[in-house]
Amino acid sequence: MSVQLDEQGRLQHFLTTEGLSSTLLTQILDTAESFFGVIDKSVKKVPLLRGRTVINLFFESSTRTRTTFELAAKRLSADVLNVDVGTTTVKGESLLDMLQNLQAMQADMFVIRHSASGAAEFFASHVNPGVAVLNAGDGWHAHPTQAMLDAFTIRRHKGDFEPLRIAIVGDIRHSRVARSQIHAFNGLGAGEVRVVAPATLLPTDIESLGVQVYTDLSAGLRDADVVIALRLQRERMQGALLPSEAEYFRHYGLTESRLSSAKPDAIVMHPGPINRGVEIDSALADGPRSVILEQVTNGIAVRMAVMAMVLGTQAEAAGDSA
Amino acid sequence: MSVQLDEQGRLQHFLTTEGLSSTLLTQILDTAESFFGVIDKSVKKVPLLRGRTVINLFFESSTRTRTTFELAAKRLSADVLNVDVGTTTVKGESLLDMLQNLQAMQADMFVIRHSASGAAEFFASHVNPGVAVLNAGDGWHAHPTQAMLDAFTIRRHKGDFEPLRIAIVGDIRHSRVARSQIHAFNGLGAGEVRVVAPATLLPTDIESLGVQVYTDLSAGLRDADVVIALRLQRERMQGALLPSEAEYFRHYGLTESRLSSAKPDAIVMHPGPINRGVEIDSALADGPRSVILEQVTNGIAVRMAVMAMVLGTQAEAAGDSA
Amino acid sequence: MSVQLDEQGRLQHFLTTEGLSSTLLTQILDTAESFFGVIDKSVKKVPLLRGRTVINLFFESSTRTRTTFELAAKRLSADVLNVDVGTTTVKGESLLDMLQNLQAMQADMFVIRHSASGAAEFFASHVNPGVAVLNAGDGWHAHPTQAMLDAFTIRRHKGDFEPLRIAIVGDIRHSRVARSQIHAFNGLGAGEVRVVAPATLLPTDIESLGVQVYTDLSAGLRDADVVIALRLQRERMQGALLPSEAEYFRHYGLTESRLSSAKPDAIVMHPGPINRGVEIDSALADGPRSVILEQVTNGIAVRMAVMAMVLGTQAEAAGDSA
Repeated sequence: MSVQLDEQGRLQHFLTTEGLSSTLLTQILDTAESFFGVIDKSVKKVPLLRGRTVINLFFESSTRTRTTFELAAKRLSADVLNVDVGTTTVKGESLLDMLQNLQAMQADMFVIRHSASGAAEFFASHVNPGVAVLNAGDGWHAHPTQAMLDAFTIRRHKGDFEPLRIAIVGDIRHSRVARSQIHAFNGLGAGEVRVVAPATLLPTDIESLGVQVYTDLSAGLRDADVVIALRLQRERMQGALLPSEAEYFRHYGLTESRLSSAKPDAIVMHPGPINRGVEIDSALADGPRSVILEQVTNGIAVRMAVMAMVLGTQAEAAGDSA
Repeated sequence: MSVQLDEQGRLQHFLTTEGLSSTLLTQILDTAESFFGVIDKSVKKVPLLRGRTVINLFFESSTRTRTTFELAAKRLSADVLNVDVGTTTVKGESLLDMLQNLQAMQADMFVIRHSASGAAEFFASHVNPGVAVLNAGDGWHAHPTQAMLDAFTIRRHKGDFEPLRIAIVGDIRHSRVARSQIHAFNGLGAGEVRVVAPATLLPTDIESLGVQVYTDLSAGLRDADVVIALRLQRERMQGALLPSEAEYFRHYGLTESRLSSAKPDAIVMHPGPINRGVEIDSALADGPRSVILEQVTNGIAVRMAVMAMVLGTQAEAAGDSA
Repeated sequence: MSVQLDEQGRLQHFLTTEGLSSTLLTQILDTAESFFGVIDKSVKKVPLLRGRTVINLFFESSTRTRTTFELAAKRLSADVLNVDVGTTTVKGESLLDMLQNLQAMQADMFVIRHSASGAAEFFASHVNPGVAVLNAGDGWHAHPTQAMLDAFTIRRHKGDFEPLRIAIVGDIRHSRVARSQIHAFNGLGAGEVRVVAPATLLPTDIESLGVQVYTDLSAGLRDADVVIALRLQRERMQGALLPSEAEYFRHYGLTESRLSSAKPDAIVMHPGPINRGVEIDSALADGPRSVILEQVTNGIAVRMAVMAMVLGTQAEAAGDSA
């Protein structure tokens, strides 16, 4: 998907982690690191996006992701507009007409979440030069800022990716998060990316994703440095063979004792919101190995980084020095 | 309607284009022109409304209009509050009590949309000195900022209004936009304002509006400089003879070929959102004559202009130098 | 409830007026007075909370209270996020998980309204050091900023509390406002706090609240300096003996003539929104003795004061000089 890069290979939209070079992925993490002062509260505001307008277009609801994007934009001094999409579609306007109208309101950036895979790319293909699109989750396809905040969290705890074994546990099939993580971690040169799931929750193209596949949890966690539980996406499981929550937890729920095959200093992650007692035991989620709340915090720095990078590219393309 | 002018004839609210002098209408357009730097992005923020509070009170939903008002206010550095009116009325408060309470919160300006004609004037008649009311659409009555952004768009393309033939096509009867356009264009000295519609979609007082009435589309478009398609307002057509969409398009839908009787350099406008294939053909809406998206963009400058003018008047009345 | 005070007895959250010292209550009023320039519009913005994030978490809807908190935060230059709670709970997240996630987004303050008594205290007990919680109403328990804006309004009109007779009329039983008022007025040393209500609308613990109880309106109003009508909270009256509105008004509705037993210069208050003709007659609500709209305006200064005080305490605790 080349629309997200300009001719010099710079990020002008952020749609997917698939196909991005190690250099570019590392640049995102380094830029996020440069915004860490906002996270440790030594810095309050960065004026990079002053006078810029960011429009949040959420066709699926999400408090966590929308709020973190809004915070990131405000920390960069942008104006943020939340467009109530349910209201808009009442009048039967097409997606493209809506895009063009919002763009005509001089928006500089769209943050879009949509239930259809490819929606963010569709937007990016149709916006004017100078306008950036960030994918905040499209169908089962991608959730690239989530993957990059996960990578950022891993790097802060573990340093270099090369020696790491990273195990992603759960509903890989319906998870845009898992896809984006796999591409990001492989792109960053992770030693081994594993997926651990029952066969019914694996995607059909799993062979092509460059991962080791495990159906047994304790084998999949052996010597892992990083263990990521995914959310059981019941709302996306129509037609799939649906395990009961109790049955799922018995086989794939993470607990302290099941983590014994992982490395002693393994960290535990989850993109949230957690189903306690389904994907993960409360004691583990709230315990010392868990970095789940750090992930949320790091999301602000990573989203600031991506916003600053794409607007920098767009501004240069538009002959603007903003 | 004199409440919108103060004793010196200056704009202190903006409720309707009816009865406004050519001088005042021109002043709105000239002020909007002075804010054009915000539109071409050479200017980011204007501090005129810094520390001022603008409350958006939308009793009818509207993404386009509400968002453009919000953007205009933010570009003028105001704080904007969107009050969820559905929530408020749950407790059975009267409109006047709500107004007085919001006013007691030190609001400086209300932007109000309501399904009842006269709602904005009611508000303007009851606010305290120093507080301005902008009509963002009231029933079938008026939508004055829409009319002024249309006038602004026309002037940028065609210059002086005196020689222009302007044809407004479609559901005149249920359109507050058409009424406000007719008053604005006539007030600005347009050579000829025409309405083109089936008899069932004409208002009963059409004779008094100072327009030429056509029921035949190609006759109505002959030698027109500006052609404006209106939205078919099905939601307001209760009790009216409702044409089918196909039938409407066959007789009144705008297409490239039907535009052949208009001037070769005629521009095509629509207040949005478009019903493609009902009021207007997609090829025409997206073609080189269409200025539909420019209208949206110009809405920001025009709303900034009106906000700056009314607050200037109110501030002076309140003995304030803001 | 000691969680709202730090070890030096300073306000670090604001959950209830119960148990607060006269000194602290007076400090809130004095601080509010120092922000009065915002109310009389001689001052536009105060930079005390610049770069701070305030999250409004309203599990019950409230235009007046939410909007006034939002305005107060914006006048202090904070960024404000309104979190749509209905949306959040769709995914079945627990209250504590939601809190921890929002906190991980680097929020500095939560303003919370919830239908459960104790919800704000629960939040305050679980937030990290440096994060403040303000109670915007929890069940039947407390609404402390409402009580303090009432106290502020009384002090501006009547000065010292010591000689005052204050009568609170209406549904005391279901009113968090009444409880918070009683604690605040007694804490500030009011001469006499009276409640006037039918026996069915008195709480069972009324004896312990330090008030004079009247069931007869004219006796209860005799020589009162301040008369406060409460809202009939029909939505909270499930299971209670519900008087008809007409019957209630006949016995407890405030009118000019029934106020004749109060002092000639008595002021009349109501927390809003008013049920005209139920708790209070329109002529009285809109008449010269009514300070109902002043209460709304004063709410901005009082909420600014509480926000500034709790963040000052939290910032010092966190070793921060913000």
